[in-house]
Amino acid sequence: MDQKYALGVDIGGTKTAFGVVSEKGVIIFHGEVPTRDYPTPEELIKEIEGQITEAGYSDFFGIGIGAPNGNALTGNIEFAPNLKWEGIVPICSLFEEKFATRSILINDANAAAVGERMFGNAKDLDHFVTITLGTGLGSGVIINGHLVEGHNGFAGEYGHIRVFPESGRLCGCGRNGCLETYVSSTGVVRTFDEWKSDMPSDSLLTKIETPDASAIFDCWKKKDAFATRIVDYTAQILGRCLADFSCFSDPQAYILFGGIAQSGQGFVDKVKIELEKNIIKPLKGKVEIRLSLLHDENAAILGSAATTFWKFNKNV
Amino acid sequence: MDQKYALGVDIGGTKTAFGVVSEKGVIIFHGEVPTRDYPTPEELIKEIEGQITEAGYSDFFGIGIGAPNGNALTGNIEFAPNLKWEGIVPICSLFEEKFATRSILINDANAAAVGERMFGNAKDLDHFVTITLGTGLGSGVIINGHLVEGHNGFAGEYGHIRVFPESGRLCGCGRNGCLETYVSSTGVVRTFDEWKSDMPSDSLLTKIETPDASAIFDCWKKKDAFATRIVDYTAQILGRCLADFSCFSDPQAYILFGGIAQSGQGFVDKVKIELEKNIIKPLKGKVEIRLSLLHDENAAILGSAATTFWKFNKNV
Repeated sequence: MDQKYALGVDIGGTKTAFGVVSEKGVIIFHGEVPTRDYPTPEELIKEIEGQITEAGYSDFFGIGIGAPNGNALTGNIEFAPNLKWEGIVPICSLFEEKFATRSILINDANAAAVGERMFGNAKDLDHFVTITLGTGLGSGVIINGHLVEGHNGFAGEYGHIRVFPESGRLCGCGRNGCLETYVSSTGVVRTFDEWKSDMPSDSLLTKIETPDASAIFDCWKKKDAFATRIVDYTAQILGRCLADFSCFSDPQAYILFGGIAQSGQGFVDKVKIELEKNIIKPLKGKVEIRLSLLHDENAAILGSAATTFWKFNKNV
Repeated sequence: MDQKYALGVDIGGTKTAFGVVSEKGVIIFHGEVPTRDYPTPEELIKEIEGQITEAGYSDFFGIGIGAPNGNALTGNIEFAPNLKWEGIVPICSLFEEKFATRSILINDANAAAVGERMFGNAKDLDHFVTITLGTGLGSGVIINGHLVEGHNGFAGEYGHIRVFPESGRLCGCGRNGCLETYVSSTGVVRTFDEWKSDMPSDSLLTKIETPDASAIFDCWKKKDAFATRIVDYTAQILGRCLADFSCFSDPQAYILFGGIAQSGQGFVDKVKIELEKNIIKPLKGKVEIRLSLLHDENAAILGSAATTFWKFNKNV
């Protein structure tokens, strides 16, 4: 291969996706296997290596791995409840052995930030924060062009900053009122559940037995009033929080990623209005809200490949 | 002079303090003049230069200047309402001309962080945040050994993150419920004012007509129950917020600076207890609360001198 390629791997509880990614962010080969079919990580890695070799690719610049309960400092997956593999799995070493190249283990939210910087909507930015809206709310912080990982690897956990610490919803973290209990796919559904007794009988949402976030956003796009109330509330909380959080790092922009954020420009516009209403005066008009340019499906592969180039090209 | 010395200058509305500071943080010469006696900045600088020359000091490594409404990016004081000098004052250029050396203009909260790192209680830390409790609440953020200034110079404005955005106290910034309206010298007095109708008749505070924060903290040290309620409330809000803010940069420690914080270990202990109660599980037991080792009086001079060494020795 005449240019550099990284292997990006996204190990999930259900499926493991992987791709051969060029330095420009093009996925030239893409594969997917059901994680649970492989009783040991060695077998999974053997399968991935087999598919990639068969397709004619080898000699990688590095491997970026995203995995549940991955510890970036040790390169191990540690006691992942959603994986069959028990205890401590030295996932980096196993990949390195098989592919004879270096590797890194990455938290998805951080990978998203680096992916956005290298291949997405933050190529021109040195100060920004990505907000990933999925089951939870993840965030990745870039300051002066460097990824902020923190002393223990827990920097950029904006989803666990509390909006309503006293009266708020119980969060998976065991605390109450965390931002992600309001602003995330599950947060949106919780708002629906709390409010549904007030749902007008003509709402489009009455026709869906248990609407998920994407159904609620779809009804909002059809101008359903009840769905609009829910989306407005979600955007209001996010905009207000991003206004306050600008007092941390004074970023140039927030990049929103994930299904509900990327459902359209309308949500971004609402968040922007709330941010402007709530931000301190010296920062008014100075913080952008952008949509991610990474597509949901390949973002994890691109992000982990991007982090590989990023880490091994310059020291961060 | 056989070692490097910086000149640290702290221009305040009332007085301007300055000092010749060694690289080890020793103030070998200290002076003070009433700012209002000098109708122009040139005259003030001439006076400072005169005193320093008379004392036998010259050839500075650099000059660090703290000033109200100072813009670190331009080196100018811009429209400072508390100074006689009107409009835009190119304070850095004026000092540089007089002393024939480089200079920098610094925000006090950031200077405090750098001062703490070079000369104070954070010499061993690469990830920490200083919290300065004065009239307001200032903060300075160090990540990976670098000062975080932000895209517009407004990083580390933790005092303007809102604790009670809906029902909270009106802040000088025009918004409601900012942290500094609760946790600062003025915040403590506002708590007293809000609660004083409930003050028990035997409280020591009944004997003081309009107690300031330091009087309230003195009564707390004498175990006055009402003063204790106020101090507990203040520590509770600060501890809770520092727990949440740890989700931003995952620091090793917060360093508390300023009169009420430095009134004793008792306040730090309370803040620490609240932080531990409120922080996310992976960070429990991992974030220290330390007291500043810089003395209130000289901190601004040390901080601005420290920033001079810091900036000109290595690029930050």
